Amino acid sequence: MSTRFVYFFGRGKADGNAGMKHLLGGKGANLAEMTAIGLPVPPGFTISTEVCDHFWKHDRAYPRPLAAEVEKNLTRLEAMMGRSLGDPARPLLVSVRSGAAASMPGMMDTILNLGLNDAAVEGLAAETGNPRFAWDAYRRFIQMFGDVACGVDHDHFERLLSAMKERRGARLDTDLRAEDLRALVTEYKAAFQRHAGFAFPQAPREQLWKAIDAVFSSWNTPRAVKYREISEIRGLLGTAVNVQSMVFGNMGADSGTGVCFTRNPSTGDNAFYGEYLMNAQGEDVVAGIRTPEPIAALKRENARAYRELVNVRALLERHYRDMQDIEFTIQKGELFILQTRNGKRTGPAAVRIAVDLVKEKTITVDEALMRVNPADLDQLLHPTIEPEAEKKARVLARGLPAAPGAARGRVFFTAEAAEKEHARVTRALESANSADKEAIKRLKSEADLILVRHETSPEDIGGMNVAQGILTARGGMTSHAAVVARGLGKCCVAGAGDVRIDSARREFTAGGAVVKEGEFITLNGSAGAIYLGRLETCEAGISGAFSTFMKWADSRRRLEVWANADKGPDAAAAVRFGAQGIGLTRTEHMFFDNIVPFRRLILVAGKVKKLREEIAAAESGTATAAERQALRDRLAGPQAQYDRALADLLPFQRSDFEELFTHLAGRPVTIRLLDPPLHEFVPQDRAGRESMARDMGASVDEIQVLADALHEANPMLGHRGCRLGLTYPEVSDMQVRAIMEAAINVKRKKRLPVKVEIMFPLVGHPHEMRLCRERAQRVIDTVFAERKVKKNEIPCHIGTMIEVPRACVAADEIARHADFFSFGTNDLTQMGCGFSRDDAGAFLGDYVKLGVYDRDPFRSLDQAGVGRLMQTAVTLGRLTNARLKLGICGEHGGDPASVRFCHDLGLDYVSCSPYRVPIARHAAAQAAIAEARAGKKKRASRTVKRVGSRSSRSRASPNHR
Amino acid sequence: MSTRFVYFFGRGKADGNAGMKHLLGGKGANLAEMTAIGLPVPPGFTISTEVCDHFWKHDRAYPRPLAAEVEKNLTRLEAMMGRSLGDPARPLLVSVRSGAAASMPGMMDTILNLGLNDAAVEGLAAETGNPRFAWDAYRRFIQMFGDVACGVDHDHFERLLSAMKERRGARLDTDLRAEDLRALVTEYKAAFQRHAGFAFPQAPREQLWKAIDAVFSSWNTPRAVKYREISEIRGLLGTAVNVQSMVFGNMGADSGTGVCFTRNPSTGDNAFYGEYLMNAQGEDVVAGIRTPEPIAALKRENARAYRELVNVRALLERHYRDMQDIEFTIQKGELFILQTRNGKRTGPAAVRIAVDLVKEKTITVDEALMRVNPADLDQLLHPTIEPEAEKKARVLARGLPAAPGAARGRVFFTAEAAEKEHARVTRALESANSADKEAIKRLKSEADLILVRHETSPEDIGGMNVAQGILTARGGMTSHAAVVARGLGKCCVAGAGDVRIDSARREFTAGGAVVKEGEFITLNGSAGAIYLGRLETCEAGISGAFSTFMKWADSRRRLEVWANADKGPDAAAAVRFGAQGIGLTRTEHMFFDNIVPFRRLILVAGKVKKLREEIAAAESGTATAAERQALRDRLAGPQAQYDRALADLLPFQRSDFEELFTHLAGRPVTIRLLDPPLHEFVPQDRAGRESMARDMGASVDEIQVLADALHEANPMLGHRGCRLGLTYPEVSDMQVRAIMEAAINVKRKKRLPVKVEIMFPLVGHPHEMRLCRERAQRVIDTVFAERKVKKNEIPCHIGTMIEVPRACVAADEIARHADFFSFGTNDLTQMGCGFSRDDAGAFLGDYVKLGVYDRDPFRSLDQAGVGRLMQTAVTLGRLTNARLKLGICGEHGGDPASVRFCHDLGLDYVSCSPYRVPIARHAAAQAAIAEARAGKKKRASRTVKRVGSRSSRSRASPNHR
Repeated sequence: MSTRFVYFFGRGKADGNAGMKHLLGGKGANLAEMTAIGLPVPPGFTISTEVCDHFWKHDRAYPRPLAAEVEKNLTRLEAMMGRSLGDPARPLLVSVRSGAAASMPGMMDTILNLGLNDAAVEGLAAETGNPRFAWDAYRRFIQMFGDVACGVDHDHFERLLSAMKERRGARLDTDLRAEDLRALVTEYKAAFQRHAGFAFPQAPREQLWKAIDAVFSSWNTPRAVKYREISEIRGLLGTAVNVQSMVFGNMGADSGTGVCFTRNPSTGDNAFYGEYLMNAQGEDVVAGIRTPEPIAALKRENARAYRELVNVRALLERHYRDMQDIEFTIQKGELFILQTRNGKRTGPAAVRIAVDLVKEKTITVDEALMRVNPADLDQLLHPTIEPEAEKKARVLARGLPAAPGAARGRVFFTAEAAEKEHARVTRALESANSADKEAIKRLKSEADLILVRHETSPEDIGGMNVAQGILTARGGMTSHAAVVARGLGKCCVAGAGDVRIDSARREFTAGGAVVKEGEFITLNGSAGAIYLGRLETCEAGISGAFSTFMKWADSRRRLEVWANADKGPDAAAAVRFGAQGIGLTRTEHMFFDNIVPFRRLILVAGKVKKLREEIAAAESGTATAAERQALRDRLAGPQAQYDRALADLLPFQRSDFEELFTHLAGRPVTIRLLDPPLHEFVPQDRAGRESMARDMGASVDEIQVLADALHEANPMLGHRGCRLGLTYPEVSDMQVRAIMEAAINVKRKKRLPVKVEIMFPLVGHPHEMRLCRERAQRVIDTVFAERKVKKNEIPCHIGTMIEVPRACVAADEIARHADFFSFGTNDLTQMGCGFSRDDAGAFLGDYVKLGVYDRDPFRSLDQAGVGRLMQTAVTLGRLTNARLKLGICGEHGGDPASVRFCHDLGLDYVSCSPYRVPIARHAAAQAAIAEARAGKKKRASRTVKRVGSRSSRSRASPNHR
Repeated sequence: MSTRFVYFFGRGKADGNAGMKHLLGGKGANLAEMTAIGLPVPPGFTISTEVCDHFWKHDRAYPRPLAAEVEKNLTRLEAMMGRSLGDPARPLLVSVRSGAAASMPGMMDTILNLGLNDAAVEGLAAETGNPRFAWDAYRRFIQMFGDVACGVDHDHFERLLSAMKERRGARLDTDLRAEDLRALVTEYKAAFQRHAGFAFPQAPREQLWKAIDAVFSSWNTPRAVKYREISEIRGLLGTAVNVQSMVFGNMGADSGTGVCFTRNPSTGDNAFYGEYLMNAQGEDVVAGIRTPEPIAALKRENARAYRELVNVRALLERHYRDMQDIEFTIQKGELFILQTRNGKRTGPAAVRIAVDLVKEKTITVDEALMRVNPADLDQLLHPTIEPEAEKKARVLARGLPAAPGAARGRVFFTAEAAEKEHARVTRALESANSADKEAIKRLKSEADLILVRHETSPEDIGGMNVAQGILTARGGMTSHAAVVARGLGKCCVAGAGDVRIDSARREFTAGGAVVKEGEFITLNGSAGAIYLGRLETCEAGISGAFSTFMKWADSRRRLEVWANADKGPDAAAAVRFGAQGIGLTRTEHMFFDNIVPFRRLILVAGKVKKLREEIAAAESGTATAAERQALRDRLAGPQAQYDRALADLLPFQRSDFEELFTHLAGRPVTIRLLDPPLHEFVPQDRAGRESMARDMGASVDEIQVLADALHEANPMLGHRGCRLGLTYPEVSDMQVRAIMEAAINVKRKKRLPVKVEIMFPLVGHPHEMRLCRERAQRVIDTVFAERKVKKNEIPCHIGTMIEVPRACVAADEIARHADFFSFGTNDLTQMGCGFSRDDAGAFLGDYVKLGVYDRDPFRSLDQAGVGRLMQTAVTLGRLTNARLKLGICGEHGGDPASVRFCHDLGLDYVSCSPYRVPIARHAAAQAAIAEARAGKKKRASRTVKRVGSRSSRSRASPNHR
């Protein structure tokens, strides 16, 4: 811990600088930096994040020297301002704000106008000659202080304000006169005493310490904790507290306050962008209560302030080499800068800005690639509304295009309702019969929700997180809803004033239509349009700055990026997004598409197996010829059904594979043979079983017997994967045949190159790999012979998923029989960590809270555990098979941190869902750049060492000669 | 493959020797050896096992040179015997027998008297002057040849024989005259033609090759395959074929045949032991059809042959340095030895013989320890009938004490019925509600079966395997039932002639009682007694030769042997069998014993957790004081119930622990905290739930809701182990408190030393270990403070099971927080190999058949897979914690091969069920001896190398100086 807890800034000098974010928070560090580079920043001081850490670790107590340090800095501030706290003549007023190293907009607390009391308010009134302003400032302070520092609900004050306005016939707050506000202060103080249980403190230092307490306490409110969880903000000490002298945007028509971005945070356009409100305090802009003016209007309203602001824009962007988000206040015509930070931006804007900054020669290509968060590319891959559908659609209203993309979903009017509905649909989806396509399709569309609010507040974060899009009736482009939506990559239309929400009736009216809770609307967040119903959407492509950016990424990365695709359209999307191959085709989806013959197969497979075993026993045993013949006769019927079911399935599989090979046109296509346990294909419910029985010409009892026979205690660890392939080898044979016939057809008829990769799932033992490979090779040889295909005419590799821990430690032996390994990290995580994805919910929440796992290991690879198993497999596999190709096809393949890990492991490719291919390409580039940078450092230090060792050797050499 | 396929033996010279078992089979190698040391062995030749291997690998074809080699050896044999195959004057008759490297009694085929045809039979009759003998030999040959080589069922011939006996009024076969037998031969040949589809071959060479084919084919009959599976015989090339000139024990009253053991194979007594039949062929003794005479009677019957045999006994035991099993024939007063091999023996006999051979200075202690199969000690640990109960019991009959020990069970009269019943009870046990103690107890007693047969045959092997004991009405001490039962370690009473079996009515009558299928009897296999009902049994102890043997084992081993024991009686047995500690106490059994308070705990635990979370949220959130109070008020009731349930459980746990600590008296006691998922404690069925609801004062719906909430898709990978401990830490706290209070009580009140080892299950992540340890340590400190216990007064270690694969690769980090690791190889196998023990049945059978796994990995540790994970954990764990104690407490801890592996891994101890402790002690000794032997070899080779390198260095040194 440092020996200093408080850092002063003011009048061109500062104790801190922009590099001290971890200690001073982003706001504090930048206030110091801006002060130092000469910007007009109101003086103040920052209490460091170490104090917050101490506060939470010591039962809300402060380090002993803190009080004296605060007092010293306060005295310095008072001297600099020529004012002092609580001085009835020239009262010093300060703001007390939180500010952590990572931005958490609106998540923590702020108190303004601190220092006012019954005496100081009179002084302020006299000094400014504006009693209305003074009493309004006092009123606001009591309200904010009560709410934030003393647990007195906002509403208690709001009700009194509304009542006063009614009594006075005032429409706006600004219609109230000084006397009204003075009376209101009296009412506020009474309300304060009533609800807080003690009188509003008149002593400014008591106010100050209570405010500091409140800010530090706000670090761990549930909503702040939740925000950090969602944003994966970790490793911070806490928040800093900034105590800064007040400037006022509400001192009359020549005062104002605003927020601006040096470039458009939504599109990345290099155009000055922002909003302001005259005669208002800062939070009026951010909270979205009044709809502000665009920044360009300031030019007319206050040309000098506007010019100064334009200069500040250029200065700060040059200084920070990135797009800035700036808060400013104009007090009686004079401009003050209250905050700057790297501006939050949408994914498209991030890419556009990075590419533009390279073109402007401000940053390098590597910097551009490192600066964009790969996960943010997701937003560029969001679908848009299908243009024809949009033309014909009924427009309900228009609002601000606050966060781009398209979203369609059912409307909900509270975060709570949205979260509940989300949970309900999720549960329904989990328990749905996977064969019931219709039900799943319906549930999936029901899972799309739109949160509709007058305005959002930090309490809504949970609901925003589960929604596809957000629609607000009030607030601007920098309102809470807009900022958070952009951060979360959600589509948002804000400030749609024509949308009239009736919360009580759970409906809204717009454009003459009434939309009730649960009904569909569609948002165009790039255009700000709201449509009735569920419009068709279409897929994103890669063009413009994004295309440049991806080319840069490709030029840097070493990892190949493949995609997981089960069907033609997925494969087409994969290729469109730049996939270099298909790393995983799950063939079970093809069986679900042809469920009747497949169920027929399952029904008869067990019988055939049993009879064959009996015949084998009879052949080598003592059974008579007649007994053997009787057994053979009994087998004939089931065997014929079995063969027919297999023959029925073959053409479907083949045509599916033909489609994949056609789309991939010579890029490798990795096809995984049947994986899930057979019971997944038998309906769970009575109705489904009855229908299955009808389809099969069997009795429901027979289906029940089948289901019982297939039931498993732990299906995750059951009869699936290559275990199925080895017990029912004819099914694998059929699949391999379908693959090879499809490959030959595409090669011969479409004259396209084809690369086949046949993948066996769930291999744990080298013998499994060997047996599977031998059998597959026999089928391949047969098909090649039938079709007169020469060896090497169609390249074909045979490999395995690595998803059983045993496979990792036996990888040397398995690699002798495999051309490639593809890490199935979903199952490897389940078996390696020993928790089932379906059941881990019961404790994984507690586990993340307790800090056992940093993150959900199903979302981001558990590098210290599962990663070590992978490392073992890579090392052992390459030991016996230097040409072994290594990839990953678990869902981690699209997670940037996991991609980085795969790069470091030395894998050849990652495979992810088509829509994450650009993200993986980018993450792979970042991994390569990070490695090169680390290598440079290492080489640098090695060079030093080598020089040293060489000189010592040359010194030693004469003795040796 | 060798260049030679046939090995001759005869007249003091042999191509092979006893060391060539792998190539010549045990029988062939020993025939060669005995010939070479001058024993009277009828000459012949052996076709090697490589031919069998070739036969099965090349679609039943022989290596090209074989025919010529057989012909050459046959010619040599004919020359030596002065006879030739098919010669009408002096026909050579031969036997054709199988013989693999490992003994498989009765499992493969034998043909005697080969060479007889319509002409040779007349020659034999003339030559011996005994037409009755000649025609009987021919009849037997046709029957055996038809059955074994041509698939003509035995029964067809037996029926003709019976009919003939009836027609002639003959009681015994021997009552038939030569003419009858000649007529029978005609009938036999007709039957042969009818059923085989071709005429009985008259050409002796055709007979010979068909017989050789039949023997090689018999290698892979289902029953031979099954026998090898059960006996874990692996890695053999196949069987050899022995073609040997015939000698006849059925040439009249001065001829005979027998089987003898150089010591008693049942008890190990150093007394000549065996049986013989005069005027009989060999298989009459083995098959148990006639009850033979004890060997001592031969002294009277043929003193010269007896004397010779006694000399052979001494010679062979000296030569082979082990107890021998000898087959002999007396032909017209002359003794021939047909076979010798190391005799199969019971576990008690194995120990007794080994100890005696050391005392006789024939072998060393290490040899004695290496010679006994640790698994066979199991038989010494079998219970015996409680003496008082045996005195009072009703004796049904007496038979031969064919295999020792006691067995009680329900009688079944066919192997098939026994197997079916076994399967039914196993299934019922698996699906039984584990809380229903009564039902489980009943099912467990029902699982005990006794197979009752006239005589057993190789087809009965499956039924014998599932039975506790075998009772036969016919056959002697060397009958099939007796030999196999001793091999399987099952209790057997053989040849109980008073037991009259009525197979059709599925009952037997004996001693005036009728025992029906499914009713209980008890066998005393050491005394040959059969009792009505289910008698009390009592536990085995260690004394006599066994005690000497175990002392020797203890003097050799390095591994400690601990036991798994949940309760006092288990702990007492563990100590009695020499356990040095308890490696696993499963505390869940204690919860089952106190199910009502534990269920109350489960019912309320979820509520308490949820309310506490709400309160925590309210505390740091914006809830009002009243709202917080309301939440606290809602918590009060459930919290009180929760506390009460915990308080109710504490004394039960404490007294259980006190009992364990008392029995172990200072040896370490490793107590594992609650492991299974909570749903195991909630009844599955409606009746159980109703009763639970009544006990809890809850509604059945509430119980249903609880069960639904606890339901898991993959319970194996669910909310269990330390995951429970971390989500419901109060339960762990209670357990730790109970352990420490018990330890203090035993230490203070009983003045016994106590060593506590607290073990957390299912740790996968170092943070889990750290959190569990910290919390446990706080409870320990509290209890110590309350009871004023000084640090180190009661040694207490805290460690973990290693059973999650992740734990193996993160063992370095986990070991920082653990005093010991105990490998839970049951779960480590499930998660490491990725198959659930409950479900693997669906494919593990196929897998063993396909050779994927050599053995069921749940029975014997999968060394190449799970073993590598263990190796990783050992290496990493010791890297960061040099004092880490390492053990194993999975069921593998009592499997000899796994014990050896644990020794090689360098573990400190193995822990197994109390009854396997002596086996583990012995296996540990074998591991140490094997290591020492390997070390000696390595040291020897290292010495050579060192000498070499030293000399090369000294040669080089002058140049350097």
